[in-house]
Amino acid sequence: MTDEERTRLIRTACGEEKADLVIKNATVADVFGGGWLHGDVAVTGGRIAGVGSYSGKTETDGSGKYVLPAFYDAHLHFESVAVRPSEYLRLTVPRGVTAYNADPHEIANVCGMRGVKFMLDDVRGVPADVHMMMPSCVPATGEDRSGAHLTAEDAERGKKLGLFGLGEMMNVPGVLGCDKDVIKKLGVFDIIDGHAPALSGGALSAYAAAGVLTDHECTTVEEANDRISRGMYVLMREGSQAKNVRALCRAVNDYNADRFLFCTDDRNLSDVAEHGTIDNCVRIAVSCGIPPIRAIKIASQNAFAAYGIKGKGAIAPGYAADMFVCSDPAECVAEEVYHAGMLVARSGEPLFARSGADASDLRGTVVLPDLTEEDLALPFTSGMPVIEVLPETLYTALSTAESPEGLDLVCCIERHRALGEIGRAYVRGFGLRGGAIAQTVGHDSHNITVLGDNTRDMLLAVRALGSDGGFAVCSGGRITAKTDLEIGGLMSMGSAADALKARRELNAAVSALGHAEGIEPLMLLSFLTLTVIPDVKLNTKGLYDVARGRYVYRCDKKENR
Amino acid sequence: MTDEERTRLIRTACGEEKADLVIKNATVADVFGGGWLHGDVAVTGGRIAGVGSYSGKTETDGSGKYVLPAFYDAHLHFESVAVRPSEYLRLTVPRGVTAYNADPHEIANVCGMRGVKFMLDDVRGVPADVHMMMPSCVPATGEDRSGAHLTAEDAERGKKLGLFGLGEMMNVPGVLGCDKDVIKKLGVFDIIDGHAPALSGGALSAYAAAGVLTDHECTTVEEANDRISRGMYVLMREGSQAKNVRALCRAVNDYNADRFLFCTDDRNLSDVAEHGTIDNCVRIAVSCGIPPIRAIKIASQNAFAAYGIKGKGAIAPGYAADMFVCSDPAECVAEEVYHAGMLVARSGEPLFARSGADASDLRGTVVLPDLTEEDLALPFTSGMPVIEVLPETLYTALSTAESPEGLDLVCCIERHRALGEIGRAYVRGFGLRGGAIAQTVGHDSHNITVLGDNTRDMLLAVRALGSDGGFAVCSGGRITAKTDLEIGGLMSMGSAADALKARRELNAAVSALGHAEGIEPLMLLSFLTLTVIPDVKLNTKGLYDVARGRYVYRCDKKENR
Repeated sequence: MTDEERTRLIRTACGEEKADLVIKNATVADVFGGGWLHGDVAVTGGRIAGVGSYSGKTETDGSGKYVLPAFYDAHLHFESVAVRPSEYLRLTVPRGVTAYNADPHEIANVCGMRGVKFMLDDVRGVPADVHMMMPSCVPATGEDRSGAHLTAEDAERGKKLGLFGLGEMMNVPGVLGCDKDVIKKLGVFDIIDGHAPALSGGALSAYAAAGVLTDHECTTVEEANDRISRGMYVLMREGSQAKNVRALCRAVNDYNADRFLFCTDDRNLSDVAEHGTIDNCVRIAVSCGIPPIRAIKIASQNAFAAYGIKGKGAIAPGYAADMFVCSDPAECVAEEVYHAGMLVARSGEPLFARSGADASDLRGTVVLPDLTEEDLALPFTSGMPVIEVLPETLYTALSTAESPEGLDLVCCIERHRALGEIGRAYVRGFGLRGGAIAQTVGHDSHNITVLGDNTRDMLLAVRALGSDGGFAVCSGGRITAKTDLEIGGLMSMGSAADALKARRELNAAVSALGHAEGIEPLMLLSFLTLTVIPDVKLNTKGLYDVARGRYVYRCDKKENR
Repeated sequence: MTDEERTRLIRTACGEEKADLVIKNATVADVFGGGWLHGDVAVTGGRIAGVGSYSGKTETDGSGKYVLPAFYDAHLHFESVAVRPSEYLRLTVPRGVTAYNADPHEIANVCGMRGVKFMLDDVRGVPADVHMMMPSCVPATGEDRSGAHLTAEDAERGKKLGLFGLGEMMNVPGVLGCDKDVIKKLGVFDIIDGHAPALSGGALSAYAAAGVLTDHECTTVEEANDRISRGMYVLMREGSQAKNVRALCRAVNDYNADRFLFCTDDRNLSDVAEHGTIDNCVRIAVSCGIPPIRAIKIASQNAFAAYGIKGKGAIAPGYAADMFVCSDPAECVAEEVYHAGMLVARSGEPLFARSGADASDLRGTVVLPDLTEEDLALPFTSGMPVIEVLPETLYTALSTAESPEGLDLVCCIERHRALGEIGRAYVRGFGLRGGAIAQTVGHDSHNITVLGDNTRDMLLAVRALGSDGGFAVCSGGRITAKTDLEIGGLMSMGSAADALKARRELNAAVSALGHAEGIEPLMLLSFLTLTVIPDVKLNTKGLYDVARGRYVYRCDKKENR
């Protein structure tokens, strides 16, 4: 704040100078006191001057309306929405979410720091506080075949580029085992986001002692309490597949409420467009009995406080005028959204220009050898180990199958350097029939994942992805849907509306094939290859037991032919 | 944290390496979760590794004991104790208070930045986190005759010296009036402590919008709520004269508890030595019904969080091992105190060496012209305005007197440059009889304040102060007590024990004279000249009406002779 800005703000607050903007006669969230203030919200120079009796150069009527501080998505991957960040923000800023901790680790796995820089460039000029994180685990594990390998030296470079902190440290064994590069990375940033599913006891203490500030992998009250008592913040996640807000609201009490934040992590485009993100978390929390003002504080002030950001996340004097107007604080449907005092969205529509960085450098990332149906085949043998997928979670179970009945075949095909590595496994619980889905979205290395009940459609789907990548659905020997994700095989070049339309066509094609209840096929498929979430996952080398840190079996080419 | 420190901490937390120190089988405050953990507290490299099952190179038995995070005095003036900071800390670190925001504005009013530097130097090497603040208001007002005048340029210098923030911004009219130097000072530091007695409405919003983070002048629940809703922290103060903790505990609730801190501001040596400081605040809060764990959090974590200090104020992995052991968390009597994992006090006794900077440069600060009894005289006239002092507050009232009966005479004598300025007034409610008290401690300019019922003893007492200054009590034409405060006329060169003995003799001499109930004569006297606390105060020029910002009368020499 310059001397001039401070002077204007003081004079406005005292009523000696007209505010730039006044929202008259509103009901205003007092996130610090826990109540509601009634009066005029005065904004000058992008900051709140006060709530009281004010007049402004511009005045809007706030009668019957509520003014809330804008929300903060404490952990997400823009890539999960499959549109570029600047497009994503056109959907969520109008919902009152103007702050983000975004970990670009998907694009980093494909394109390295070039991808991270693109993400930074792409959000420039968007009226939101996008805190881009340094991807900590690229590749996610030493077993992964990713398109890049980021070291502590890259983290140093990232810090200089303006990255906000170290993104989710998924390499828990690396932390606990004091891997030298991991320790170095931890030393680069003050802010370190975590990822510690099912960690407890001394191991959890070690993880916290290492400097990890948050965890978004809690699913139970006990896990939440374990993290809070160790000084960590619990990020209550409501993604498309992993939905934890409802369960974790039971852990929130009068004493510990300030240690909770909301995040979306991985949320698909239709969920974002139809149900929102952090506004959706607030609605769920309120439906679970958390008072609206407390849910709003969790969605706003708590996150800014956790990340040490001053002067944001409250409607209070001197605070940034990042806020929105709504008619019901329990519903949080933003009618007008302000960022730094500027009206940036109205009635759900963005008022800011479409922007975005040049992405041509991130195209053509799919590089494959010639493939045949045989390359994708896996002979079934009775009693063989299979992956069991479960509804509404990214966790899987290791099971066995006596017959191929009800199983799908999944392959993970290396696609960054045409190495010819293909992992294969059978899956129970997916229930896809008469076709195949192929995609270049496959956490975190984003090789090609293809699942189906016949290798003909599977191969066709893989070929349909082309050199840019995306999603393809095939059935009966023909392509029934195809979505281009030109940016790294992860994000569309087009608008969110077009992507949403394409996604709906894609979903329709998937639905036409049929699948099990309670799963979101494309997202679930994209996590079947993430070898840091228990119990078993598939990578380009074979079926991997995450808990035991070893392969159930490997898919050496010769062995399987 | 270096890579090596992080590695050792992780290995210790995992149980793979012995801790430096383990307190076995203790009950441990969980300030984040609000409960109590049971286990061994492991410390390595000065940090907590974890609470669990650990073994250490050194082990102590914590059975039946409680381990609490060390406390934080969020606002104090070391000078109020009249010993040097390094001596003060020998009294309070053993009580478990190891963090301080200390505003050296008393010595700054006498010696300027030379005084501030001395304070910084004096605490060097003491096992405590002393955050020295930049005095913001030297002199306190434009009407004051202080020994120094500190500007925004001095604040810049102070920042470079390592000062932590801007000390209590008492110049509220300067803030609200956007005084250029005040605005500049506010721009120098991110952390700005406040001082806003009775401020409310738009003026309070303006004060908060200016960047002020805290206020320690709240006395009512309403004032506390007003500040909290504006994003400010409320410092619940328990000084020797101003005691607000009891009243303000009524404002603490389940929602807003994190917005409260404790401080002592001005607390005299005997109160510090006999009753403690922040430990005393915790006891009072608990007696008011606040659960011990919440009172402990207010005393520790809340303050570190408010000031943006990470990794301190909790017994949690990675946090600094600043903590103490006690037998009853409601009493908080520290038995062993640790700072950065080192045992620094036991059974109330400091285990660290007596230190302290060279103070010879700050001696001989009392410079007076020749004075006679006549210089101190004030003819009484019926109906004349008088200062009315009140029990247990620093506020005064403006009153009138029909007869001199029950009144004392008080003079404020300029003593920095022998200017010959002397303000005079009568005081009701002090009740001193048969003598006089003179002192160089007189907030904030620290001129000589002398009060008595006869000018002979008053002059004698002033002369007894000598060139170094201190306190003098005279009765019946003789000196009955004398305390040297060689450092700026504010602080003793000697030990706290000697100062305490001297103070007791001084108090005995004051008691021998007799005074009204409910007042602490020497401290009250030291605030009779502070022209920022309503309603009326006396400076070297005359009787000043604080609320109206004007003199009730001036004491021009010729006029009064």
